[in-house]
Amino acid sequence: MKARVTVTLKNGVLDPQGKAIEGALKSFGLEGIESVRQGKIFDIELNSSDPAEAETLLKAAAEKLLANMVVENYRIEILG
Amino acid sequence: MKARVTVTLKNGVLDPQGKAIEGALKSFGLEGIESVRQGKIFDIELNSSDPAEAETLLKAAAEKLLANMVVENYRIEILG
Repeated sequence: MKARVTVTLKNGVLDPQGKAIEGALKSFGLEGIESVRQGKIFDIELNSSDPAEAETLLKAAAEKLLANMVVENYRIEILG
Repeated sequence: MKARVTVTLKNGVLDPQGKAIEGALKSFGLEGIESVRQGKIFDIELNSSDPAEAETLLKAAAEKLLANMVVENYRIEILG
Protein backbone atom coordinates (compact mmCIF):
# COMPACT_ATOMS: atom_id res chain seq x y z
CA MET A 1 0.00 0.00 0.00
CA LYS A 2 1.22 3.49 -0.92
CA ALA A 3 0.62 6.68 0.98
CA ARG A 4 1.71 10.29 0.87
CA VAL A 5 2.29 12.48 3.93
CA THR A 6 2.32 16.21 3.15
CA VAL A 7 3.91 18.55 5.71
CA THR A 8 3.31 22.30 5.44
CA LEU A 9 4.10 25.26 7.67
CA LYS A 10 1.22 26.54 9.80
CA ASN A 11 -0.30 29.88 8.84
CA GLY A 12 1.58 32.76 10.38
CA VAL A 13 4.88 30.89 10.62
CA LEU A 14 7.58 32.75 8.70
CA ASP A 15 9.02 30.86 5.71
CA PRO A 16 12.38 32.41 4.74
CA GLN A 17 13.08 29.58 2.26
CA GLY A 18 9.78 30.30 0.47
CA LYS A 19 10.60 34.03 0.48
CA ALA A 20 13.98 33.31 -1.13
CA ILE A 21 12.35 31.18 -3.85
CA GLU A 22 9.78 33.94 -4.42
CA GLY A 23 12.60 36.47 -4.86
CA ALA A 24 14.48 34.18 -7.22
CA LEU A 25 11.39 33.59 -9.39
CA LYS A 26 10.74 37.34 -9.58
CA SER A 27 14.36 38.03 -10.52
CA PHE A 28 13.94 35.46 -13.33
CA GLY A 29 11.25 37.73 -14.75
CA LEU A 30 8.27 35.64 -13.64
CA GLU A 31 6.17 38.60 -12.58
CA GLY A 32 2.80 36.96 -11.92
CA ILE A 33 3.95 35.32 -8.70
CA GLU A 34 2.66 36.78 -5.47
CA SER A 35 3.98 34.47 -2.79
CA VAL A 36 5.62 31.06 -2.31
CA ARG A 37 5.56 28.75 0.71
CA GLN A 38 7.57 25.57 0.78
CA GLY A 39 6.59 22.20 2.20
CA LYS A 40 7.68 18.57 2.16
CA ILE A 41 6.16 15.31 0.97
CA PHE A 42 6.98 11.78 2.03
CA ASP A 43 5.97 8.98 -0.35
CA ILE A 44 5.76 5.92 1.86
CA GLU A 45 5.28 2.25 1.00
CA LEU A 46 3.67 0.13 3.69
CA ASN A 47 3.45 -3.61 4.30
CA SER A 48 -0.10 -3.35 5.58
CA SER A 49 -3.09 -3.63 3.25
CA ASP A 50 -5.57 -2.37 5.86
CA PRO A 51 -6.25 1.37 5.35
CA ALA A 52 -7.19 1.95 9.02
CA GLU A 53 -3.98 0.29 10.24
CA ALA A 54 -1.95 2.25 7.69
CA GLU A 55 -3.52 5.51 8.82
CA THR A 56 -2.66 4.79 12.49
CA LEU A 57 0.94 3.96 11.56
CA LEU A 58 1.32 7.08 9.41
CA LYS A 59 -0.20 9.30 12.10
CA ALA A 60 2.43 8.02 14.54
CA ALA A 61 5.19 8.53 11.95
CA ALA A 62 4.05 12.08 11.16
CA GLU A 63 3.75 13.16 14.79
CA LYS A 64 6.94 11.46 15.99
CA LEU A 65 9.27 12.32 13.17
CA LEU A 66 7.98 13.79 9.92
CA ALA A 67 6.33 16.98 11.18
CA ASN A 68 7.28 19.45 13.87
CA MET A 69 3.84 19.87 15.43
CA VAL A 70 4.76 23.26 16.93
CA VAL A 71 5.08 24.96 13.54
CA GLU A 72 3.84 22.44 10.96
CA ASN A 73 0.64 20.72 9.87
CA TYR A 74 0.50 17.34 8.19
CA ARG A 75 -1.97 15.57 5.92
CA ILE A 76 -2.13 11.83 5.21
CA GLU A 77 -3.39 10.50 1.87
CA ILE A 78 -3.74 6.77 1.31
CA LEU A 79 -3.07 6.19 -2.41
CA GLY A 80 -3.96 2.48 -2.34
CA MET B 1 -5.30 32.08 -7.73
CA LYS B 2 -3.55 29.35 -5.76
CA ALA B 3 -1.49 26.51 -7.15
CA ARG B 4 0.72 23.72 -5.86
CA VAL B 5 3.86 22.47 -7.62
CA THR B 6 5.00 19.02 -6.43
CA VAL B 7 8.59 17.99 -7.15
CA THR B 8 9.60 14.34 -6.74
CA LEU B 9 12.71 12.36 -7.60
CA LYS B 10 12.54 10.32 -10.81
CA ASN B 11 12.35 6.55 -10.45
CA GLY B 12 15.76 4.99 -10.12
CA VAL B 13 17.37 8.09 -8.63
CA LEU B 14 18.85 7.28 -5.23
CA ASP B 15 17.28 9.12 -2.28
CA PRO B 16 19.66 9.02 0.70
CA GLN B 17 17.47 11.47 2.65
CA GLY B 18 14.45 9.19 2.23
CA LYS B 19 16.58 6.20 3.28
CA ALA B 20 17.64 8.03 6.44
CA ILE B 21 14.01 8.84 7.30
CA GLU B 22 13.06 5.20 6.65
CA GLY B 23 15.82 4.06 9.04
CA ALA B 24 14.72 6.56 11.68
CA LEU B 25 11.07 5.45 11.46
CA LYS B 26 12.10 1.80 11.80
CA SER B 27 14.31 2.58 14.79
CA PHE B 28 11.26 4.29 16.37
CA GLY B 29 9.55 0.90 16.24
CA LEU B 30 7.27 1.66 13.27
CA GLU B 31 7.73 -1.72 11.62
CA GLY B 32 5.11 -1.59 8.87
CA ILE B 33 7.12 0.87 6.76
CA GLU B 34 8.80 -0.51 3.65
CA SER B 35 10.30 2.53 1.97
CA VAL B 36 10.26 6.33 2.06
CA ARG B 37 11.04 8.82 -0.69
CA GLN B 38 11.12 12.52 -0.04
CA GLY B 39 9.87 15.33 -2.24
CA LYS B 40 9.07 19.03 -2.11
CA ILE B 41 5.96 21.13 -2.54
CA PHE B 42 5.64 24.79 -3.41
CA ASP B 43 2.36 26.52 -2.56
CA ILE B 44 2.23 29.49 -4.88
CA GLU B 45 -0.14 32.44 -5.03
CA LEU B 46 -0.56 34.06 -8.43
CA ASN B 47 -1.92 37.40 -9.62
CA SER B 48 -3.47 35.86 -12.68
CA SER B 49 -7.02 34.51 -12.67
CA ASP B 50 -6.64 32.70 -16.01
CA PRO B 51 -5.83 28.99 -15.46
CA ALA B 52 -4.04 28.62 -18.83
CA GLU B 53 -1.82 31.66 -18.14
CA ALA B 54 -1.12 30.38 -14.62
CA GLU B 55 -0.14 26.97 -15.96
CA THR B 56 2.33 28.52 -18.44
CA LEU B 57 3.88 30.65 -15.70
CA LEU B 58 4.18 27.70 -13.32
CA LYS B 59 5.68 25.47 -16.01
CA ALA B 60 8.39 28.09 -16.58
CA ALA B 61 8.96 28.42 -12.82
CA ALA B 62 9.21 24.64 -12.33
CA GLU B 63 11.60 24.11 -15.22
CA LYS B 64 13.79 27.16 -14.51
CA LEU B 65 14.07 26.94 -10.78
CA LEU B 66 11.88 24.60 -8.75
CA ALA B 67 12.84 21.24 -10.25
CA ASN B 68 16.13 19.83 -11.46
CA MET B 69 14.88 18.24 -14.68
CA VAL B 70 17.82 15.82 -14.80
CA VAL B 71 16.75 13.92 -11.69
CA GLU B 72 13.30 15.26 -10.76
CA ASN B 73 9.72 15.29 -12.05
CA TYR B 74 7.21 18.01 -11.32
CA ARG B 75 3.44 18.21 -11.26
CA ILE B 76 1.31 21.36 -11.34
CA GLU B 77 -2.10 21.54 -9.65
CA ILE B 78 -4.25 24.63 -9.97
CA LEU B 79 -6.24 24.87 -6.73
CA GLY B 80 -8.37 27.82 -7.89
